[in-house]
Amino acid sequence: MEIKDFQKDKYYMEKVLQLARQGWGKTRPNPLVGAVIVQEDEIIAEGYHQQYGEDHAEVDALKKLNFQAEGATIYVNLEPCSHYGKTPPCVEAIIRSKIARVVVGMKDPNPLVAGRGINLLREQGIEVATGVMEEEAKKLNEIFVKYITTQKPFVILKTAMTLDGKIATATGDSKWITNEDSRAYVHHIRDRVAGIMVGVSTIIKDNPTLNTRIDNKEVSQPLRIIVDTKGRTPMDSNVVLTAKTQSTLVATTKEANASKVQLYKELGVQVLILSLKDGRVDLNELMMELGNRQIDSVLLEGGGTLNFSALQYGIVDKVMSFIAPKIIGGRDAITPVEGEGINKVADAIELNNITHRSFQQDLLIEGYIEGKD
Amino acid sequence: MEIKDFQKDKYYMEKVLQLARQGWGKTRPNPLVGAVIVQEDEIIAEGYHQQYGEDHAEVDALKKLNFQAEGATIYVNLEPCSHYGKTPPCVEAIIRSKIARVVVGMKDPNPLVAGRGINLLREQGIEVATGVMEEEAKKLNEIFVKYITTQKPFVILKTAMTLDGKIATATGDSKWITNEDSRAYVHHIRDRVAGIMVGVSTIIKDNPTLNTRIDNKEVSQPLRIIVDTKGRTPMDSNVVLTAKTQSTLVATTKEANASKVQLYKELGVQVLILSLKDGRVDLNELMMELGNRQIDSVLLEGGGTLNFSALQYGIVDKVMSFIAPKIIGGRDAITPVEGEGINKVADAIELNNITHRSFQQDLLIEGYIEGKD
Repeated sequence: MEIKDFQKDKYYMEKVLQLARQGWGKTRPNPLVGAVIVQEDEIIAEGYHQQYGEDHAEVDALKKLNFQAEGATIYVNLEPCSHYGKTPPCVEAIIRSKIARVVVGMKDPNPLVAGRGINLLREQGIEVATGVMEEEAKKLNEIFVKYITTQKPFVILKTAMTLDGKIATATGDSKWITNEDSRAYVHHIRDRVAGIMVGVSTIIKDNPTLNTRIDNKEVSQPLRIIVDTKGRTPMDSNVVLTAKTQSTLVATTKEANASKVQLYKELGVQVLILSLKDGRVDLNELMMELGNRQIDSVLLEGGGTLNFSALQYGIVDKVMSFIAPKIIGGRDAITPVEGEGINKVADAIELNNITHRSFQQDLLIEGYIEGKD
Repeated sequence: MEIKDFQKDKYYMEKVLQLARQGWGKTRPNPLVGAVIVQEDEIIAEGYHQQYGEDHAEVDALKKLNFQAEGATIYVNLEPCSHYGKTPPCVEAIIRSKIARVVVGMKDPNPLVAGRGINLLREQGIEVATGVMEEEAKKLNEIFVKYITTQKPFVILKTAMTLDGKIATATGDSKWITNEDSRAYVHHIRDRVAGIMVGVSTIIKDNPTLNTRIDNKEVSQPLRIIVDTKGRTPMDSNVVLTAKTQSTLVATTKEANASKVQLYKELGVQVLILSLKDGRVDLNELMMELGNRQIDSVLLEGGGTLNFSALQYGIVDKVMSFIAPKIIGGRDAITPVEGEGINKVADAIELNNITHRSFQQDLLIEGYIEGKD
């Protein structure tokens, strides 16, 4: 293939990724997928997977051409499906439309079906190119990839600290470490995930609502997950009081008082009684239970103790660290990850595939836990 | 002026700044200055201020043309001097060489002489353009600007922390938070400053040598400044043991034992007895004393307690914060700025003019203290 063709493929695949992003927050647990159909260097149709249960991207685009696209090329960020799920398979629609060439970003991450769609297309004499912008395609669907391969949620640890590593002052004040743009972006992330998880100390201390607020946009409200070993979540906390309008789950253990558990349930709170591990809720068991409930993604927002446990027990996949260019000092001020800590710097939890992004003067550093990206 | 000419001026000024940087660490307390002479769109001579006491950049360049540059343009990042210092004034050399146009990055920051060189040139009918890449020119000589206008050193607070805000683990291990490239860059900064300052706790805990180490380059060794209210610096610490080969200064108060002070002096350590302020060395007085000793710049590398005091008493001009993409956790782990701390986030010390720079996976965030850039 000539360099020019490769650049052309990249150009259209970028369009595909943009289209895919339009499904943000609405396709769960399906992936974000876009499709672009090109004939003689011209885009003749575009499509994307708009919502769970609706048309896949390929069908969304091909429909606009009445499934007639003889000799055209279709670009799609994920290998077209070949199985009957909620909608008929895309491979069949592509063959029926007489598409001549299929350009794929990444293969299906499900090891049971990976490559099957591509093989079926090739058997029909259709040319298939794979791996175009593969890294970007994988990153776009990192949640889907984790969930489909492990049945456990993709966990994002989100922190926000000052340039001297504090998430609150020594007196507990934390309003606001980061600027408005950073905080708005957090709501954009909340809109993408199925659950938000905090420790009970955060509920007791800050009494947050943990909802998603974005101006002029209908948003999905994530499941609020409270890790609460002893059942200390107050009955008059905002999360409990609003449990009938936004799903709330208390993850606790047999150490919680049975009548309190009963009261949570009456107030509309889901309760999971999990095993104890090192005196706390077994986080790995919690992840399995959440996976069973179709929670494909969790934004972990909190508390230095819970953050450290989550890292220690290996449930975190990605870290998003906002850093504000201000200094508050304080030997007793609170930092994003506390607990017992690691003794040797050489044994630190390393992040990789680091990227940076600015929100005015704030900076967001994103990275993946070693061996988990 | 046409856009094309402006771009041309910028192009040559960039060259000038590159040349100026070659004097890094050797011109103190003079500024870093470069000069480029251009005739008919061609560079006919270049020069820079190579070392304190030697030719200024303009003269260094003009010499190469035997002071004959009729009709040429000279680019220089700092207003040419008009006073007799260690060398004859540059304004005279420019006039003598029949230069037709002078392009200046920034005016002389010394309020007593600012604009005088430019006026003298204009009086001779020489065209002068000012403010070309002014911001970059000011940043390059931020140390000189501070020192010449206040007679106090420019103080850079340098920290290195993990992504969860720790400079050492709960057990005190700190080797190594940042990677080799970051650490090499710190030595490059040490080579540029006149002094390195730490608290006595750092000396007791880590026993550092605080020298500058750069492969294959002759470096200047900064004055080592130990802030030590009670005279606790051990006689067998590396800084005291090497005081005869690298200057060392203990900044203390009347709380230090007189015989210990005598012993420091015998071992080649300079001792400053300063006032007490809030029970500690008066840092503002220390800065004045350092300024009197031609210390134009200090790299503050130390201890959360000293770092907080330095910020609190307003002696810090710039913050350089290295962030390594690793997490160690620990409620008791050590953070870069400690002390009593600020109670309200709204009262935080704000940084501005934030820039970022990557050293492999590490990130360096640089900023200036509000109102001090």
